[in-house]
Amino acid sequence: MTGRYGSIEAVLPEVRALLGERVTTSPDERRHHGTDEGWQDPAAPEAVAFPHSTEEVARLVRLCTEARVPVIPFGAGTSFEGGVGALHGGLCLDLSGLSRILAVHDSDLDCLVEAGVRRTQLEEHLGRRGLFFSVDPGADATIGGMAATGASGTTTVGYGTMREAVLGLTVVLAGGEVVHTGGRARKSSAGYDLTHLLLGSEGTLGVITEVALRLHGIPEASAVGRAGFAALAQAVQTAIEIMQRGLGPVRLELLDEVQVAASNAYSGLDLPRRPHLLVEFHGTPGAVAEQVAAAGEVAAAHGAQDWRSTSDAAERRRLWKIRHEAYYAARALRPAVRGMVTDVCVPLSRLADCIAETRADLDASGIPAPILGHVGDGNFHVVLLFDPEDPVESAQVRAAHDRLVQRALGMGGTCTGEHGVGHGKLRYLAAERGAAAVAAMRAVKAALDPQGIMNPGKVIPPE
Amino acid sequence: MTGRYGSIEAVLPEVRALLGERVTTSPDERRHHGTDEGWQDPAAPEAVAFPHSTEEVARLVRLCTEARVPVIPFGAGTSFEGGVGALHGGLCLDLSGLSRILAVHDSDLDCLVEAGVRRTQLEEHLGRRGLFFSVDPGADATIGGMAATGASGTTTVGYGTMREAVLGLTVVLAGGEVVHTGGRARKSSAGYDLTHLLLGSEGTLGVITEVALRLHGIPEASAVGRAGFAALAQAVQTAIEIMQRGLGPVRLELLDEVQVAASNAYSGLDLPRRPHLLVEFHGTPGAVAEQVAAAGEVAAAHGAQDWRSTSDAAERRRLWKIRHEAYYAARALRPAVRGMVTDVCVPLSRLADCIAETRADLDASGIPAPILGHVGDGNFHVVLLFDPEDPVESAQVRAAHDRLVQRALGMGGTCTGEHGVGHGKLRYLAAERGAAAVAAMRAVKAALDPQGIMNPGKVIPPE
Repeated sequence: MTGRYGSIEAVLPEVRALLGERVTTSPDERRHHGTDEGWQDPAAPEAVAFPHSTEEVARLVRLCTEARVPVIPFGAGTSFEGGVGALHGGLCLDLSGLSRILAVHDSDLDCLVEAGVRRTQLEEHLGRRGLFFSVDPGADATIGGMAATGASGTTTVGYGTMREAVLGLTVVLAGGEVVHTGGRARKSSAGYDLTHLLLGSEGTLGVITEVALRLHGIPEASAVGRAGFAALAQAVQTAIEIMQRGLGPVRLELLDEVQVAASNAYSGLDLPRRPHLLVEFHGTPGAVAEQVAAAGEVAAAHGAQDWRSTSDAAERRRLWKIRHEAYYAARALRPAVRGMVTDVCVPLSRLADCIAETRADLDASGIPAPILGHVGDGNFHVVLLFDPEDPVESAQVRAAHDRLVQRALGMGGTCTGEHGVGHGKLRYLAAERGAAAVAAMRAVKAALDPQGIMNPGKVIPPE
Repeated sequence: MTGRYGSIEAVLPEVRALLGERVTTSPDERRHHGTDEGWQDPAAPEAVAFPHSTEEVARLVRLCTEARVPVIPFGAGTSFEGGVGALHGGLCLDLSGLSRILAVHDSDLDCLVEAGVRRTQLEEHLGRRGLFFSVDPGADATIGGMAATGASGTTTVGYGTMREAVLGLTVVLAGGEVVHTGGRARKSSAGYDLTHLLLGSEGTLGVITEVALRLHGIPEASAVGRAGFAALAQAVQTAIEIMQRGLGPVRLELLDEVQVAASNAYSGLDLPRRPHLLVEFHGTPGAVAEQVAAAGEVAAAHGAQDWRSTSDAAERRRLWKIRHEAYYAARALRPAVRGMVTDVCVPLSRLADCIAETRADLDASGIPAPILGHVGDGNFHVVLLFDPEDPVESAQVRAAHDRLVQRALGMGGTCTGEHGVGHGKLRYLAAERGAAAVAAMRAVKAALDPQGIMNPGKVIPPE
């Protein structure tokens, strides 16, 4: 495959002429930029460029197109499926220099940011104005990276994923053309939905340089409820009934017993070591009080042992910090080994079965593997902690992962609820979507990137 | 252009062999199937086929592909931008025979329907189970047609458009390949988002034959508030403040003075002849009571003269019937002439200016032209009632329409909030999206429909 591509040497002089010191071939930088938080082997790019504007990105992509050099966008490196790996060499575009919040329109509840803006940077900026942006993956990802992977998070059950949050994108296509995919209207039916085509395309169709986002006013009232359960199934059934009764949670998260133990150790807590559910509601004070009371009744009916709710802001922050640190807590269960983080999503009616079968399967394997997730969406994560130097463990983990994905697909679910395909899940795409759908994706890819230079080897399985 | 396409005669014998009596070349059927509710000249297809399954659609599309015969899907014929016109002849596929509700999954809040299912048919079916589907364009459109145009409606401000409502599609692509674009998981990041690429593509990329939809439970409580205002600007400002305060309406509709007069006459009402706002809230009883009270305060602060609210189901239905009949009421203002129905959508902060300037412009023209719309989204409609035989009126209407679109684009808005491009708005697409975006759309179209047989002449402007 690599023979299709041109040498980095063909573009480096011009890249240096354009960016000066803002391009490097340092081994450390290359290694860092070819590594994400996933379990796939890193693959370093041949050089790393640090553009500061859409125009610079466009010029770099044009150079790479002319020389057939792969282009790999890099945000914060927090992806899980190997999205940043330079599988065919090429030039990494580190977009952290595109870090300006260009506009916030308070009265329209939207904003425009550059792709390198971090999630927490935006949160802080908006909070001072009484606004918030809803999508919150655990990591402090960039907004551009979140758009490129179609990210979601704990609030997706209430506010949606990046697919609902993004109004439009500025994208540099192969060849260097700059496209604006959407305007500032809250809805439009003007032509093909290039915004959603690019969301989740993981850099394989273009480089996202600007993102227009829907925002929300910070709600008048918020409350969090939490409960521990004797059995995992009780926690899952509580979540399902909260959804099916239409109580309207904006967060609905499960931590299984293994994860609670990990979080206690990592975050210095003393939660009872049993499966927990956390649920949050936003709205007017009366509404939130009604919702949280109803959720408490559902939990009690399913055997909750210590339902507590709070509207105190500090207490709410403390509880959600546990959730946002969960991945790092899980990793700390077995430091110095690799964590394979994966996620699947199934219809709500199959969630209890899917989690129960998965827990039993993992327990049988003996591999430490917390389960946690966005159960209101039917989405859950497994962190498998294994020693990649140990061939037995590695094989066990791969087999357990395969069984997990097949289990989810067999239940009408998806091989990836929110982490994307990267190259870690390429082999499941045709099984899930069918050969005809993959062929249509391949045709779209060939149309927009005829040379195949945009993040090659990702999303679209080889023919 | 027509020279690119093959003759219908090349496929008719095989279509007849496949469908028997379910294909016709009757002039009446052809005329009917080339006509929608828009103002563009009708264009009759050469023949109309009535398939009953995805497999039959696939076989028909395969025949047409082999003979380079245009394929034009037809749902209920309720589009406004000429989407059903057979501009280059060809075979119309009337999908009304794909009318089965294939599955309703109560506990997952989703369903699977064939493309020809009508909106009200689904509503009735779901209502018996305590569920509802949220997207409600005025017309009794088919679900497939609504997916193909990316439709929205009065509840979009609360529940979203078809883009938020559709989980996945079954689509027959050019060549006859059948693609399933999504599964039943509430979210997925498995590959390119073909679902959203097809939504709003208006039959130009494929024929939608099945649609999986998100559903909602019928809310515990609902209430509607309505008020008349002395001035249009007061009504618009009330709508904007309801949105900006985050009160969470699920419907927020404006009828201007001209529309109120039309609706009084058509629906036998006696609303005071002044601009009106209708707003609806869904939720738990306490929440709805808080929301509707807050909306009443906002309306009063903007000079509402007769704020009333009700949670009575019959009264609510009566009010929304006015809104759903509004288009027919507007047409009845000047029977026997044509109505040009158009819509634009702008950022909320520009909505008051956009409506005020439009009202003044229309009044100056002397053409009867009610304004109404989904103002919570920044989206409004104008129905221009003109005599197409009168060259002066026709020219006036076209010029007023051009000015309306330019005004919306100048305010950062879109030339079409929900009606689509069809061929009525082709000439505005490049001005709104830019040449590079249109070129990308054209590349996608060429990739999925290399012969250009899928609903030719729509959405993508000629080069």
